[in-house]
Amino acid sequence: WRRHAALAAAREDEEEKELRQRFMAPPVSGLRELRRRRRELRSRMELLIMETQAEMCRALAALDPGASFAVDSWERKEGGGGISCVLQDGEVFEKAGVNVSVVSGLLSEEAARQMRSRGKSLKAKDGKLPFCAMGVSSVIHPKNPHVPTMHFNYRYFEIEEADGTKQWWFGGGTDLTPTYLNEEDAVHFHKTLKEACDKHDLKLYPKYKKWCDDYFYIKHRGERRGIGGIFFDDLDSPSKEEVFQFVKSCAKAVVPCYIPIVKKHCHDSFTPEEKLWQQLRRGRYVEFNLLYDRGTKFGLLTPGSRIESILMSLPLTARWEYMHNPPESSKEAEILEVLRNPKDWVH
Amino acid sequence: WRRHAALAAAREDEEEKELRQRFMAPPVSGLRELRRRRRELRSRMELLIMETQAEMCRALAALDPGASFAVDSWERKEGGGGISCVLQDGEVFEKAGVNVSVVSGLLSEEAARQMRSRGKSLKAKDGKLPFCAMGVSSVIHPKNPHVPTMHFNYRYFEIEEADGTKQWWFGGGTDLTPTYLNEEDAVHFHKTLKEACDKHDLKLYPKYKKWCDDYFYIKHRGERRGIGGIFFDDLDSPSKEEVFQFVKSCAKAVVPCYIPIVKKHCHDSFTPEEKLWQQLRRGRYVEFNLLYDRGTKFGLLTPGSRIESILMSLPLTARWEYMHNPPESSKEAEILEVLRNPKDWVH
Repeated sequence: WRRHAALAAAREDEEEKELRQRFMAPPVSGLRELRRRRRELRSRMELLIMETQAEMCRALAALDPGASFAVDSWERKEGGGGISCVLQDGEVFEKAGVNVSVVSGLLSEEAARQMRSRGKSLKAKDGKLPFCAMGVSSVIHPKNPHVPTMHFNYRYFEIEEADGTKQWWFGGGTDLTPTYLNEEDAVHFHKTLKEACDKHDLKLYPKYKKWCDDYFYIKHRGERRGIGGIFFDDLDSPSKEEVFQFVKSCAKAVVPCYIPIVKKHCHDSFTPEEKLWQQLRRGRYVEFNLLYDRGTKFGLLTPGSRIESILMSLPLTARWEYMHNPPESSKEAEILEVLRNPKDWVH
Repeated sequence: WRRHAALAAAREDEEEKELRQRFMAPPVSGLRELRRRRRELRSRMELLIMETQAEMCRALAALDPGASFAVDSWERKEGGGGISCVLQDGEVFEKAGVNVSVVSGLLSEEAARQMRSRGKSLKAKDGKLPFCAMGVSSVIHPKNPHVPTMHFNYRYFEIEEADGTKQWWFGGGTDLTPTYLNEEDAVHFHKTLKEACDKHDLKLYPKYKKWCDDYFYIKHRGERRGIGGIFFDDLDSPSKEEVFQFVKSCAKAVVPCYIPIVKKHCHDSFTPEEKLWQQLRRGRYVEFNLLYDRGTKFGLLTPGSRIESILMSLPLTARWEYMHNPPESSKEAEILEVLRNPKDWVH
């Protein structure tokens, strides 16, 4: 029996060593703790977001050999913490951030209601609800205007009500914001996401594609932020395990849906006019994130949140010109048309 | 009698011609209509905002001889319109906008409540309130990091309740956002504003100086947008005439409080590092305007509002760097200290 235990311990040490090498930093909950409660969904989700962060960072770093990721582990006074990985002013990427956060503590009933997009009311004990929220989120702004900006976020919430019942749900999405339209890239991006969804239910992609177009709407401009992808929130059925497997498929699709597009275009030549149009589109990106994005607003309002990690989504540089209107039939007008009237890229 | 009438008509024609030359464009309400109801406060205020626009544009254009103002007159489908004057990418100014708007129509009770910062409730007939809102607003972003950004806005509202009583109030302010602190400039700016206030009541400057520091607060950063100035809203006492005279003094102080500072520094030499710090501060300016500014939010939500005129306040270019922290005792740290802990510049 002793030999068996020693072997098991050695295997566990090996596993721990491997995870340590694989991740960008030690996980917020600690490897030992995660291993101890390895069957719980919280632990499996934390490992998934850590893996997703590491896969994305490695894939990006491989394309930008001169630059490297700054890795910051931070703690939240009220409970939990996170790991921010940011590559800034590289050869290929203007700013690329991949964040993980795992926070817990007590929420007010009001804050809990705001967290759910459907606004379900929750019964609190003494007005406070114990909660746990974790997620991976990323925004990649490349330098070359022919390489699109990409964003993804996958998150998991748990809230405990007064009677001990646990509410849980997942949210997430992956979306693309090109400066110029490249139909082949748009199809590749959406097709990869559709395949990830289709493995679970054929209804998911069309539903979440539409949700994405609706969510990333810059109302005062009458434009979407980009050419979409998938977006979902408040997902709590059919079962925790099935939703987790779906989220896992989406997270695993992040690298294959985007990295080939970066590789294909990162050495494309471009003109100063194309760079300028990119900067104007960056301005719209800022408008969406500061005026409409629920995640940004919720983050900025949450006590003890890490501002630098939340605003990492903003581009390194942006531009606003008064009355800029691209000429008809230009490449700039072509992308605007798609932002105003979203298209179906795969059927 | 006839000769007298002919002389009066000739004098009026002369006056009209003079006004036409003095303004940037014909007033929204028309010169004839303004002359017809010349004793009404609405007309006097419209003439004041037109004059303020013209004075500012002329003063700015004189400092940037190569550039010129684009003048756009626009109409609002729901009633009224405006005149936007924008100088972009000049020698001295990166982006300088001076807008006038004079709009009228019907407001919902909810919208009317939101318009007043105190949120007074108003009794509407059939749920709608006839209103009139007019103002001049301006944001000047210079190129040289040693020339501060400046903003001012003076506005007047009228709302008619169900029983025919008219609610009216004024709002406004002038504030400065330097990239680097120059104490002499800060004192000149505040002193000029204080003198304008002191002519009316010695209590005004201290009160509105504090209101300005409180209003332009970027909560998530723990910083003010700039070094302040004056700000007030919902001003409806002691009397319409007295408040108008006060607002007039403030509007007349706009050119003398700012233009000498531009003249003094627009040929200062600067380093690329100073330009970069300016761009980072521009980023904070964008954060304030999109996340907190009531005017911007109200504007973007108002049906039929002119987006390009509202977002003219955004700088031509801005920058966000992850974890940028200026070194201790640097010039960058010096201004941050003042933005975190506002100072009294005049006593």
